[in-house]
Amino acid sequence: TAVIAEIGMTKKQPDVLTPELLESIDRYWRAANYLSVGQIYLCDNPLLRRPLALTDVKHMLLGHWGTTPGQNFIYAHLNRVIKQYDLDMIYVSGPGHGGPAVVANTYLEGTYSEIYPDISQDDAGLQKLFLQFSFPGGIPSHASPECPGSIHEGGELGYSLSHSFGAVFDNPELIVACVVGDGEAETGPLATAWHSNKFLNPVTDGAVLPILHLNGYKIANPTVLARITHEELEQLLRGYGWTPIFVEGHEPALMHEAMATALDTAVQQIQQIQQNARVMNDDDAGGFARPRWPMIVLKSPKGWTGPKFVDGFQIEGTFRAHQVPISDPAAQPGHLELLNDWLRSYRPQELFDERGRLLPELAKLAPEGERRMGANPHANGGLLLRDLHMPDFREYACDVPTPGASGIGDTHVLGPFLRDIAKINQEQRNFRVFGPDETISNGLVALFETTDRQWDAATEPNDEHLAPTGRVMEMLSEHQCEGWLEGYLLTGRHGLFNCYEAFIHIIDSMFNQHAKWLKVTSHLPWRRKIASLNYLLASHVWRQDHNGFTHQDPGFIDHVVNKKAEIVRVYLPPDANCLLSVMDHCLRSRHYVNVVIAGKHPAPQWLDMDAAAQHCAAGIGIWEWASNDGDQAPDVVMACCGDVPTLETLAAVSILRENFPELKIRVVNVVDLMRLQPQTEHPHGMNGQDFDELFTTNKPVIFAFHAYPWLIHRLTYRRTNHENIHVRGYKEEGSITTPFDMTVLNEMDRFHLVMDTIDRLPQTGDKGLALKRRLKEKLIEHKIYIDKNGQDLPEIRDWQWRGKT
Amino acid sequence: TAVIAEIGMTKKQPDVLTPELLESIDRYWRAANYLSVGQIYLCDNPLLRRPLALTDVKHMLLGHWGTTPGQNFIYAHLNRVIKQYDLDMIYVSGPGHGGPAVVANTYLEGTYSEIYPDISQDDAGLQKLFLQFSFPGGIPSHASPECPGSIHEGGELGYSLSHSFGAVFDNPELIVACVVGDGEAETGPLATAWHSNKFLNPVTDGAVLPILHLNGYKIANPTVLARITHEELEQLLRGYGWTPIFVEGHEPALMHEAMATALDTAVQQIQQIQQNARVMNDDDAGGFARPRWPMIVLKSPKGWTGPKFVDGFQIEGTFRAHQVPISDPAAQPGHLELLNDWLRSYRPQELFDERGRLLPELAKLAPEGERRMGANPHANGGLLLRDLHMPDFREYACDVPTPGASGIGDTHVLGPFLRDIAKINQEQRNFRVFGPDETISNGLVALFETTDRQWDAATEPNDEHLAPTGRVMEMLSEHQCEGWLEGYLLTGRHGLFNCYEAFIHIIDSMFNQHAKWLKVTSHLPWRRKIASLNYLLASHVWRQDHNGFTHQDPGFIDHVVNKKAEIVRVYLPPDANCLLSVMDHCLRSRHYVNVVIAGKHPAPQWLDMDAAAQHCAAGIGIWEWASNDGDQAPDVVMACCGDVPTLETLAAVSILRENFPELKIRVVNVVDLMRLQPQTEHPHGMNGQDFDELFTTNKPVIFAFHAYPWLIHRLTYRRTNHENIHVRGYKEEGSITTPFDMTVLNEMDRFHLVMDTIDRLPQTGDKGLALKRRLKEKLIEHKIYIDKNGQDLPEIRDWQWRGKT
Ligand SMILES: Cc1ncc(C[n+]2csc(CCOP(=O)(O)OP(=O)(O)O)c2C)c(N)n1
Ligand SMILES: Cc1ncc(C[n+]2csc(CCOP(=O)(O)OP(=O)(O)O)c2C)c(N)n1
Ligand SMILES: [Mg+2]
Ligand SMILES: [Mg+2]
Repeated sequence: TAVIAEIGMTKKQPDVLTPELLESIDRYWRAANYLSVGQIYLCDNPLLRRPLALTDVKHMLLGHWGTTPGQNFIYAHLNRVIKQYDLDMIYVSGPGHGGPAVVANTYLEGTYSEIYPDISQDDAGLQKLFLQFSFPGGIPSHASPECPGSIHEGGELGYSLSHSFGAVFDNPELIVACVVGDGEAETGPLATAWHSNKFLNPVTDGAVLPILHLNGYKIANPTVLARITHEELEQLLRGYGWTPIFVEGHEPALMHEAMATALDTAVQQIQQIQQNARVMNDDDAGGFARPRWPMIVLKSPKGWTGPKFVDGFQIEGTFRAHQVPISDPAAQPGHLELLNDWLRSYRPQELFDERGRLLPELAKLAPEGERRMGANPHANGGLLLRDLHMPDFREYACDVPTPGASGIGDTHVLGPFLRDIAKINQEQRNFRVFGPDETISNGLVALFETTDRQWDAATEPNDEHLAPTGRVMEMLSEHQCEGWLEGYLLTGRHGLFNCYEAFIHIIDSMFNQHAKWLKVTSHLPWRRKIASLNYLLASHVWRQDHNGFTHQDPGFIDHVVNKKAEIVRVYLPPDANCLLSVMDHCLRSRHYVNVVIAGKHPAPQWLDMDAAAQHCAAGIGIWEWASNDGDQAPDVVMACCGDVPTLETLAAVSILRENFPELKIRVVNVVDLMRLQPQTEHPHGMNGQDFDELFTTNKPVIFAFHAYPWLIHRLTYRRTNHENIHVRGYKEEGSITTPFDMTVLNEMDRFHLVMDTIDRLPQTGDKGLALKRRLKEKLIEHKIYIDKNGQDLPEIRDWQWRGKT
Repeated sequence: TAVIAEIGMTKKQPDVLTPELLESIDRYWRAANYLSVGQIYLCDNPLLRRPLALTDVKHMLLGHWGTTPGQNFIYAHLNRVIKQYDLDMIYVSGPGHGGPAVVANTYLEGTYSEIYPDISQDDAGLQKLFLQFSFPGGIPSHASPECPGSIHEGGELGYSLSHSFGAVFDNPELIVACVVGDGEAETGPLATAWHSNKFLNPVTDGAVLPILHLNGYKIANPTVLARITHEELEQLLRGYGWTPIFVEGHEPALMHEAMATALDTAVQQIQQIQQNARVMNDDDAGGFARPRWPMIVLKSPKGWTGPKFVDGFQIEGTFRAHQVPISDPAAQPGHLELLNDWLRSYRPQELFDERGRLLPELAKLAPEGERRMGANPHANGGLLLRDLHMPDFREYACDVPTPGASGIGDTHVLGPFLRDIAKINQEQRNFRVFGPDETISNGLVALFETTDRQWDAATEPNDEHLAPTGRVMEMLSEHQCEGWLEGYLLTGRHGLFNCYEAFIHIIDSMFNQHAKWLKVTSHLPWRRKIASLNYLLASHVWRQDHNGFTHQDPGFIDHVVNKKAEIVRVYLPPDANCLLSVMDHCLRSRHYVNVVIAGKHPAPQWLDMDAAAQHCAAGIGIWEWASNDGDQAPDVVMACCGDVPTLETLAAVSILRENFPELKIRVVNVVDLMRLQPQTEHPHGMNGQDFDELFTTNKPVIFAFHAYPWLIHRLTYRRTNHENIHVRGYKEEGSITTPFDMTVLNEMDRFHLVMDTIDRLPQTGDKGLALKRRLKEKLIEHKIYIDKNGQDLPEIRDWQWRGKT
C-alpha cells in the first residue's frame, strides 16, 4: 500500500487560474461548440471560408444541440484538471445524444484522427467530420461505440452512474467524470445509482465524479430536479451521501472561473479522501467514516450560446433548444442568416489555422497521449483485459458413480468453483460477482468462505460477510447489478450476475443495449474484445413453487435470442457437472452474452465429469445409457433441455420402458440451446444432416423444455422433422404448490410426457390406452395427496433412475 | 368546489390516545401476529387449545416472517385513524411477501370471511386459514389478488409507490397508506417514485402516505437506508419533497404511542394541505407553494416479537428473521418448544373467544363496511369502473379518396380523437395519458388543445402545457408511467401509455406482473374486470433512422405473447383510419393488455373509414383493390403486417404486376396479430380452414412483418402452408440512415420482397432473373445516392400506389 500512498502524493498543486488560462479555455470551448454546430448543420464549407450558402447545409438536420454546449464546457474543463493533476480520467456522457460534443472533443484532442485517419486535422477532415454525423454510412448521433473514449452510448437514458461505478471498481487510480442529465436523473435506475457510493472502497477503488447537468429540461418538459428549490436539491444530494458543489450561471467568463474552481475543489477532495483512506488506514478503510465524495451541479442554460430567439420563440434556456434549434434554413426566411450568425459567433477564424487545424496554443490545452479521455485505455477495456486464472473445473466435480446419483443442488456445486476463481484472482482484482441480495439464496454461499460483500456503509454486530473490500456486490437493484457489471466488463474485467430467473426481465432493456454495443464493437477493428456478460439464472421457474406465480417467468431467453446470433449464447446444463463445464467455458469466452440457467435444489445427477465435459462440448447429444434404440432407428425421441425437464423425461422413459420394453426410445439432451437452430442462423447451429440424425426425419419427438415451449418451435421450424416435434414447457400456469405439481400444472410432468408419447405411437395399442387411464388416475391421486399433505407423493419424491437393468 | 371544501371539514377531532385504547391496539396487533405465525406454521390446533404437537405443524414451512409484524403494527394503527377521521383509505404492501399480515388483518376485520365464507370466524375457519397459506391448492404467500384489499401483489419489488400514486390521481378523498420496504427502496423504480409528489394536485387528487418500513434488512444483507446516518436519511426524504415523521424503537407500549401520534400528525397534515388547497384556492392550487406531504419512517426490528435467539443465533432484529425463523421443528431438538413459546407469547386465549372468534372489544377496533381496507371498493377497481364517454371515432377519419392517398402521420390523426376523449370525460375524470416526455414527439400534440400535463412543481415563463390539473402525465421514467397507469387502472379508471417502441422493454417485467395479475383476477368471481392496459408504441423501429441502433427494437410483442392468450392482444394498424378503429376498440375493452404499434411520420393511407372499420373488425383480410387473383387461386400471397411493411409490400406488388401482369397476386394485410395463431391457442385465432383459404395450402407466402420475423413462424408453425411462408422483418440491422435504407438493411424493402417472390416462382423464368439483376443494381444505386445525398432516391420518396390501371 505504500505505492498507493505515493500515488496519492504525486498530485501537483493547482496553478493559479489566470485570466489567460480561462480565456483560452473559453476559446477551446468555442471551438468544440463550433464543431458541434458544424456537425449538425454543415456538409460543406466547414470553416466558413466563403459565405454560408444553402448548399453548405445538410438536407436532413438531425442531432441534439441542447445538451451539447454544456458537455463541451465540462469536457474542456476536465481537460484542464487532467493536465493539472495528471489524472487518469474517462468521460461518461449520460445524455449520450450529445454525440456532437464527444465527437468534437475527441477530434480536437487528436484521438479521433488517430483512429480514423481519414478524418484528418484540416479542412478536408473537418468537412468529412461534419458530413458523417447522423448521415447514412456515417456515425450515430450518440456517444456510440464508434466514438473513441466512450463506454456508454447513452441512447437509452439512466445507466451512466452505474456504468461509471462499474468502471472504477478495482481501478484505484481512475476517476470517471460522469455527466448526468437532469432528465436522465428522473429514471429509476439513475435515481438509485446515486447510492453506489455506499459500495465503493476509497482504498482499492477509484472515484466517480458525477456532474449533474442541470440544464432545466428534457425533450418538451422541464425536469423535476430543476423545479424543486435549491434547498431541496441540496438536501437530496446530501441525503444520497454526496457533497454537492454548485456552479450556476450563464455568463461564460464567470462560469469558467466557477467551474474551474469547482473542479479544483472536487479533485482535491477526491484526492484527500483517497489519501486519508490509503495512507492512514492501510488496506482497509472500514474504521473510517464513509467518505462524502464531492459532486458538481452545473446549472446552465439548455442550448447555451445557441440562438436566443427563432421565429419569435425563445430557444436558449428553454426546452426548445433540445434538438435542432434552427430547423429549416432551406424553407424558412431568415433561418440561413440566423445559422450563419450562430456559427460565426464562435469566430472560427480565431480558433483554426489556415489549414483548418486547431491553433497550437489551444491544442496544447488537451492532455497528451493516453491521458486524453478519448485515448484512455480504460475506455477500450479489451486493451487492458487479462485472462482470469482458472482452476480446473474438473476438480469441483460431484461424484456420479451412476446416473441418478443424488445431488446437493447444482449451484451449490458451482459455488466452490466460483469461490476459488475469486480467490486466485484476488491479486489481479479483476473478477466480481453481482446480485440483488440473492447470492446465498442462489446457492453460492461458498463465495463467502474466501471473500465478502463490498460494503462501505455502517456495520452492526450481527452482520455477516460485509467488508470494505470484497468480490461480491449486492444491492437490491437488478439495474445496479447489471449496470455495475457492464461498466466493470467494458473496462476490461470479468464477472457474473446471479439473479432469480423471473426478475432478470427487469434488465431486459439494459441487456438489449449491451448486446447492441457488443455487436457494433465487434465490427470496429480498433475496439478490443471484452469479457462476456454472464448471467446465472438460478431460482428458476420450476422451483418457485414457494414464491408462486409472480416469480415464474422463463422468458428472458426468448428475449435474448432476438439479438444477433454472433453475440448470444444460452446454456441449460442438466446437472452440476455440466454446470461446471459450461461456466468454465463462459468465463473464458469473449464478447458474448451467456445465459446459464441452473437449479439450486437437491436433484439427481446424470453425468460424471468426463461425460459432462464431453456432453457440454457437443452441446447436444444422445444419452445412450438412458436410451435403448442401440444401433437401430428409434420409435420415439425423448428430448429434454433444462434440469427439471431432464428429470421428468427420464422418469417418463422409465415408465415407458417398463410398460413397453419393446419400444425403442432415444433420449436426447440439449445443453447449448442454439445447437437447435440451423447453422445458417447461429454459429452454434447444427447442420441439417446432424440434426436429422439425432432427431430422425419422421419419428415423434417428445420435447420437454425448461422455458416457453414455442421457443423450441421457433428454433426448429426449418428442420425436416419439425412437424413431429411436440414440445412441453412452461405455459403460465403455476402458483404456490409442490415442485412436481408445477410440472403437472404445465403438463410437462412424466405422466403427461408418457401420455403424449402414447398418443403418437399407435403401436402401443390397447395397452397404451390402459396405461393412459392409469396415469390419469395417478394425476388425480397426486392432486388429492398434495392438497392433503402439502408435499409430493412419496413415489415422486423418492423416485430414482434405475438404469437399464 | 364547495363540496370538496366540505369534505375537508368533516374530519373529526382526534380523540385522546388513552392507555386503554393503546392497550387494545396492542392486543389487536398480537392477534394479527398470532394469525401470521399460525399461517406460516400450523395445519391444526389453531388456537392451541391442546398442547402443540408436531402433527399440528406443516411439513413445508414457507413464508416471510420478517416484514410481517411491522405490517401488522401499521395496519392496526391505520384502522384506528380510519375510524377516528372517517378516512377512505386503502393499504399497499410494498414488501408483499408479508402476505400473512394482509391475510390476517382482512380476516380479523371480517372481509376475508365475507368473500370466502368457508374461512369462517371460528376455530374451523381459522384452521383452514392457516392450512391454505402457502399450501398446494391454497393461497400464495404474497399480497396476491386472492387477498381482499390488495391492488399490489409486491412479488417483484419496487412499484408500491407508483401504484399508490396511480390510485389517488382523481380520487380526492382517497388516502393510500403505502408501506415501502427498506430493501424495496433500493430498487430504481422505487427510488424515483418518491418524486411522484411533484405530479399530484392536492385539490383534485387524493394523498399517498408512504410508510418507510425501516426494519434494517432485506434477505441476507442490511439495507442502505438503514445504514446511513439519521441526518442523511432525513435529508434524502426532505430532498425528495417529503416531511418525514420518525417512529423508532422496539418497546411495544412506547411504539404504540409514538405511532398513533405520528399517524395523527400525518393525517392532520394531509387534511390541512388539502383544505388549504381546496378551500382557499378553488380549483387550482397553482398559486400555492407545492405542499410538502407528510410521510412516516417506522424503524423497528425485523421479525419484531419473534424468537430472539434460535440455535444460538440472534433472530429478531437481524436479517435472519427474513423468512421462517424456526426452520425445522420436526428435526431440530427444542424447535417445537420454541415455536410453542412464540405462539403462546401472544396469549391467544385473551384475544379469541371460545368459538375462535376475535373478542368483540377487539373486533370493534376495525372500521366498518367499506371503510375496512379489505372491503374498500377502490381496491377492487372494477366495482367503480365507469365506461368512458367515447366520441364516434369515424368522425376523426382521414380522407382516403383512393388507396395511397397521402397522410400526415397516423398518430397525428389519432391525436384529436384522444383529445376529445380527454375532453368529454373531463367531468368524470377517469381517463389519463401517460408517457416519458414523448407525448408530443409521438404525434399526440392535439391533446394539449384541451388539457395539460399535470405538474405541481415550479413553472417558468417559457413553459408550455403545464398545469396542476391535466390529463397527461409525463415524467422521464417508463417505470413511473407504467406504475402510475397500473394504479390508475386497478382502481377503476382508463388510460393509455405512449412510448418509444424500443424503450418499452424497460417495463417488460412490470408488464409481466400486471398480465399475471389480470390472469389470476379474471378467475376470481368477486374481482370485477378493470379497463385494459393500453400501449401505444409510436416512434417505432422502422423510423428510428435518426436515432440509430439503440432505438431499434420491436421485441416487446415477442415478450407480450408469452403471457396468457386470454389476456394479451397485439394490433398493427397499417394506416390512420385503422389506428382509430383499433384504439376505439382497445379503450372500450376490459381486462386485457393491448399493444398498438403505429407510425407518426407522414405515410400513405390505404383504407377509407368504412373499409378500415371492417378490416379491423376482421383483423385480417385480403386487400382486393391491391390483388389481382380475382376469383382464382393466387400464384403468390403477399402478406404484410405493420405500416412500413405494408408500404413495402404494396410497392413490391406494383413492381411485380408491372413486370409480370399475368401473375395472380393476393395481398393479405394483418391488423390483429393473434389472428395468425390457431384458434385453440388464442381466442382471436383463426380456424384452420379460414387460414388456409386466405394463405392457400401450397402457394408461396411472402410476409413482410413489422417486428422480428421468427415471431410469425412461432405463431403459424402449425398451419398447413407454414413451410411456404417466407418472412422478412427486423433482424438487428440498422443505424443512422434513411427510412428506406432501414428496410434495405433488414432486407424487407420492396426490392428484396420482389426478389424473394421471383425466387419462389419458377414461372417468372429468365424475365424474373433479369428483373432480379436490375433490382440488385437499383439497391446499389440507392446506397450510392443516400451516402451522397443523405436522403432516399426521389423515386422512393415520391413513390405512390397507382392502383390497378
Ligand atoms: C429511457 C429513455 N426514455 C426516453 C428517451 C427519449 N429521450 C431522449 S432525450 C430525452 C431527454 C433527456 O433529457 P436530459 O437527460 O435532461 O438531457 P439533456 O437535457 O442534456 O438533453 C428523452 C426523454 C430515452 N432516450 N431514454
Ligand atoms: C425486484 C426484486 N428483486 C429481488 C427480489 C427477491 N427478494 C424477495 S424479498 C427481498 C428482500 C426485501 O427486503 P425489504 O424490502 O426490506 O422487505 P422486508 O425487510 O420488509 O421483508 C428480496 C431481495 C424481489 N422480490 N424483487
Ligand atoms: Mg436536461
Ligand atoms: Mg427490510
